[in-house]
Amino acid sequence: MSAVASLPGLGGAVLAGRISSREAVRLCLERIDQSDGATRSFVSLQAERALEEARQRDSARGPHGPLHGVPFAVKDIFDTADLPTEFNSPLYKGFRPAKDAAAVALLRAAGGVFLGKVSTAEPGSFPDTRNPHNAEFTPGGSSAGSGAAVGGGEVPLALASQTAGSTIRPASFCGAAAFKPTWARVPVEGMKPFAPSLDTVGWVAEDCALLGSTAQALGIVNEEPRGPLDRPLRIGFYRTPYFAEVEQETVVALEKTMRLLVRAGHEVEEVQGPDGAARMNHWQSMLMHGEGRASYLAEHARDPALLHPGVLAVVDNQLGITFEDMREAYDRIAALRPRFEEAMAGFDAWLTPAVPGEAPRFEIGNGLATFNRMFTALHVPCLALPGFSGPYGLPVGIQLVAPRFADSGLLATGRVVESLIRQG
Amino acid sequence: MSAVASLPGLGGAVLAGRISSREAVRLCLERIDQSDGATRSFVSLQAERALEEARQRDSARGPHGPLHGVPFAVKDIFDTADLPTEFNSPLYKGFRPAKDAAAVALLRAAGGVFLGKVSTAEPGSFPDTRNPHNAEFTPGGSSAGSGAAVGGGEVPLALASQTAGSTIRPASFCGAAAFKPTWARVPVEGMKPFAPSLDTVGWVAEDCALLGSTAQALGIVNEEPRGPLDRPLRIGFYRTPYFAEVEQETVVALEKTMRLLVRAGHEVEEVQGPDGAARMNHWQSMLMHGEGRASYLAEHARDPALLHPGVLAVVDNQLGITFEDMREAYDRIAALRPRFEEAMAGFDAWLTPAVPGEAPRFEIGNGLATFNRMFTALHVPCLALPGFSGPYGLPVGIQLVAPRFADSGLLATGRVVESLIRQG
Repeated sequence: MSAVASLPGLGGAVLAGRISSREAVRLCLERIDQSDGATRSFVSLQAERALEEARQRDSARGPHGPLHGVPFAVKDIFDTADLPTEFNSPLYKGFRPAKDAAAVALLRAAGGVFLGKVSTAEPGSFPDTRNPHNAEFTPGGSSAGSGAAVGGGEVPLALASQTAGSTIRPASFCGAAAFKPTWARVPVEGMKPFAPSLDTVGWVAEDCALLGSTAQALGIVNEEPRGPLDRPLRIGFYRTPYFAEVEQETVVALEKTMRLLVRAGHEVEEVQGPDGAARMNHWQSMLMHGEGRASYLAEHARDPALLHPGVLAVVDNQLGITFEDMREAYDRIAALRPRFEEAMAGFDAWLTPAVPGEAPRFEIGNGLATFNRMFTALHVPCLALPGFSGPYGLPVGIQLVAPRFADSGLLATGRVVESLIRQG
Repeated sequence: MSAVASLPGLGGAVLAGRISSREAVRLCLERIDQSDGATRSFVSLQAERALEEARQRDSARGPHGPLHGVPFAVKDIFDTADLPTEFNSPLYKGFRPAKDAAAVALLRAAGGVFLGKVSTAEPGSFPDTRNPHNAEFTPGGSSAGSGAAVGGGEVPLALASQTAGSTIRPASFCGAAAFKPTWARVPVEGMKPFAPSLDTVGWVAEDCALLGSTAQALGIVNEEPRGPLDRPLRIGFYRTPYFAEVEQETVVALEKTMRLLVRAGHEVEEVQGPDGAARMNHWQSMLMHGEGRASYLAEHARDPALLHPGVLAVVDNQLGITFEDMREAYDRIAALRPRFEEAMAGFDAWLTPAVPGEAPRFEIGNGLATFNRMFTALHVPCLALPGFSGPYGLPVGIQLVAPRFADSGLLATGRVVESLIRQG
């Protein structure tokens, strides 16, 4: 694994002025040159333009944005004006949007340097992107390239998205940190929609500090002051109704995190979610596939033969989702949101699995979103932290969640937990 | 008013093969030439291309899509590849998207002929579009051009959108029919987002039949069979908690509609909404402005000086909306959705005001969405029907609403009610 972490803290080094933006971009390009043949994270790259933009950042006088000079990659479902946006779909081969998606524009406006596009899975279709820690394993999906590129040290930051577990899962499989904010806090304009009530912009980064700078760049500022975190945290340990599906390595990661917290004087107590939570993943699936039916109608009208079978299955409603299923899913999930948050009151965050365990082998698929779907449907912020591994030596992350709009507080809590995990 | 309705049933005439698509486009262009100087509905027009596309439709062999040959206009917040997309914003002067928004692509794939873009209001900024029935009055907003162009007989169909009352209101002010479907049933991809939990694609058309053909084109097919409508309808009369805000002409329009229904053997009974409904408009406003904060962040980062003051007020949260306001709004609205639908069970639709009354004078603003905001927030389908007028001789519409996903049933009910209103 040592080969992987060759660019630790690169984003932080740029922000602290320890290296120039141009040097950071050069290091990323070097790293991509060395390792992208194995991970296949990037689907396109603008090396010269990024170097030039980095040079401009280096010579720019302040005030500087929160990502000034930091190189970043973008999941290929976000529109970018400089590079094609192909959605891993033959229908969009070479497609060039006229402007950047809102989130991309905000990262650039905050000083970030756009390096290139990274791979994405369409429903039922995986890119040939590999886990940076072992190319025989999946990096996860659908933000495959975002997880692999950051986890593989090719770039310190990558924009991703989450409708089920597409940000938290690949980050956890690839050994990176990641954040999915409260639903609708970050603009989705210019991001390919799949299920509007779930779709959320997410991001994968080298550490919690950079996750936080990115949150600031995307308009999430600390509007809900929670006092300084120089006090003991109160963390709930939430098994979720799906705990029977975890692998041993996730249990070990969670137990170790709890031991580290307790040893440092923080409080950890096991918590229960509200009744009915066991159906959350089912309802999330109803909404994801039910709303998804509309999202590829225009492509279907253009040429159904060019849709992946997984997309066709959604458009054709092969799950046979009824309107009654949809109504039930909307209303039951909505009713559980305040009940979850009542249970979360008084906690800084709940600790919960990020993934069942290590990444599966590439042939098996891109892994399960078992421990992500319910939180995406609840619209709550989710944070993944790396630092653990499984029997095959692959990374395993843990997850922290908090009530809606407690994004800044969750990022602050994450920094404390991250520091404990790093110190071991 | 006779001058206005010079192209009655043009869309239906094309679909029935009574006139060619080319002839229909020619008539629209003639009408636009005559009257658009007064209404200023269109912000751009592609006359030659539309005539050529119409010619192709006329010579195409079947099977034909549900809008084959029908000319349509598009609110200028939807991306179009052929004409600029400017959002009534100086930031987007001459902006040319690389592809059509999903809804535009679907109308074209269904055989519709794209004629041009029609005006839109940005928050706090009105286009100089005028009511086709009297240029001293507003056409309503934000889909100002959609309402004015269809109500003024310049085009039989126009794509619109609704976040508060932006489809139903202008149609009612301008004397056109309109439909806002269940939230998330029609893809919003390529439509400028404002508040994702509310934003819905809507459309304005010459009559209910064309509203229905458009629904089919946009993927809403009759999946929820409700039996043929050759039986007495059961209509609820719902005053809403805001009935004190109606003008006399809306009361008259509703009473006349009920008399027509009863005379034709249908059942009408007054209904009550669930408790708490009186706060619906307040909560809708919290969500609209709270989510809206994120939607112009990228434009704000580009140049805040080019944002309209109304947009700036949203970005800067001048209403002082708190996260607690947002949580309350989300959860209370969501809790009322199933309760409204329990109350609606057994009814074909609820009859309710579409607008407080006639359009206000242009100087006053573009009217109030008092009777639209709660239904948009409830995610239910809403149908506006014209046929009434107020003391200044301006149109007044009525509104029918139904439970989520009962879109096809509502359109069928609408055709019955429309026919009664037309026969008077």
